[in-house]
Amino acid sequence: MVKALIAPSILASDFSKLGAEAHRVFEGKADWIHLDVMDGHFVPNITMGPPIIACLRKSVPKDPKNPGKYFFDCHMMVSKPEQWVEPIAKAGGDQYTFHFEATDDPLKLIKLIKDNGMQAACAVKPGTPVDVLFPIAEYLDMALVMTVEPGFGGQKFMADMMPKVDALRRKYPHLNIQVDGGLGPATIEAAAKAGANVIVAGTSVFKADSAEQMIEMLRSHVTLSLQKKGLLE
Amino acid sequence: MVKALIAPSILASDFSKLGAEAHRVFEGKADWIHLDVMDGHFVPNITMGPPIIACLRKSVPKDPKNPGKYFFDCHMMVSKPEQWVEPIAKAGGDQYTFHFEATDDPLKLIKLIKDNGMQAACAVKPGTPVDVLFPIAEYLDMALVMTVEPGFGGQKFMADMMPKVDALRRKYPHLNIQVDGGLGPATIEAAAKAGANVIVAGTSVFKADSAEQMIEMLRSHVTLSLQKKGLLE
Repeated sequence: MVKALIAPSILASDFSKLGAEAHRVFEGKADWIHLDVMDGHFVPNITMGPPIIACLRKSVPKDPKNPGKYFFDCHMMVSKPEQWVEPIAKAGGDQYTFHFEATDDPLKLIKLIKDNGMQAACAVKPGTPVDVLFPIAEYLDMALVMTVEPGFGGQKFMADMMPKVDALRRKYPHLNIQVDGGLGPATIEAAAKAGANVIVAGTSVFKADSAEQMIEMLRSHVTLSLQKKGLLE
Repeated sequence: MVKALIAPSILASDFSKLGAEAHRVFEGKADWIHLDVMDGHFVPNITMGPPIIACLRKSVPKDPKNPGKYFFDCHMMVSKPEQWVEPIAKAGGDQYTFHFEATDDPLKLIKLIKDNGMQAACAVKPGTPVDVLFPIAEYLDMALVMTVEPGFGGQKFMADMMPKVDALRRKYPHLNIQVDGGLGPATIEAAAKAGANVIVAGTSVFKADSAEQMIEMLRSHVTLSLQKKGLLE
């Protein structure tokens, strides 16, 4: 059983006041924030790394009584995912999503991530078939089906990725399945219907008149769809 | 003729409120801010890239009547320096410092940087002899002699780099010569005496009780030394 989780991507936030931006969306009832780490090698952009995540963690410290709160969902668009596990854990990451395309040994990497106290997730680019996740899915806390080419915010949602989400959901009814790229009012229905339950939303949340209303709207679509499928936690 | 320029490195700032941190040191009379871009390949850390610099530029916009104000000194610790010239220029960079060790054709890169409207500077790591800069110095707006191994803030100043600064200053009395790493009250005298005029200071400025007093102290040492050498602008 799964539930709707909305994860605003801070790639669309104002980086000059990142702490305030994170607080704003958490106050708007975001479940997680999605942190896009890019190294300029796996993707053609450099965004941010451990020093920035560590500062942000100080700004939104964990609550020991409520460990699920202020969850940092770290999407590692980097060419050497093994290298950053320990630095990201130390910086305050809760989940570490590596790209299947970037590693030779996903199972070893999953173990490394868990040994460092984080949840482990694996992402696939639009050109990667979803079947590659089947042999490792039972060890994963989440699968991420990219709905744009990773690298930049503000891109158009690729509806033709939905069969990948649907295939995953049929095989793994209880797995967190995330979609990332171009999610908003016009695309949430397709993603929810295919079975995605973790929604990354950048521009649509951060540029909305009300982040809270946008988050609520996205969540209600996903919850309804999970309910229809009999999968709601 | 040169003058003292103090460039606080935002690697030591609080990234959760980067705009406010930049304003704080500019109000404390910092001449430039030093932006450490790291890609996790040239150095073992990922810091920040064009999206963050672009947000920071919006927070401290250029004044067309005073183009030297709010100067963004971008230190590119990246393995493909050619790739980021245009993105950094678009994000609002004023100067682009590449590493000599990272390029095969420094003169071509200098031209590319200038064609993109920025000042061009070249850095050398502690292990690189300073002589490599001699054939290109006349095309440079600045040379950077690293006084720590690049990658992390808060490291100890390497006094044995000072002969490199001294050699550069004797040969190029009018060149901006920057030192970066471990600069503060205990080390500014050595750097100023060797002839450095552009001082990167991270921890010492951002963690000082008064950024303004620290900046003033660093500046006064450099100004006095330039005066003694007859090089003060």
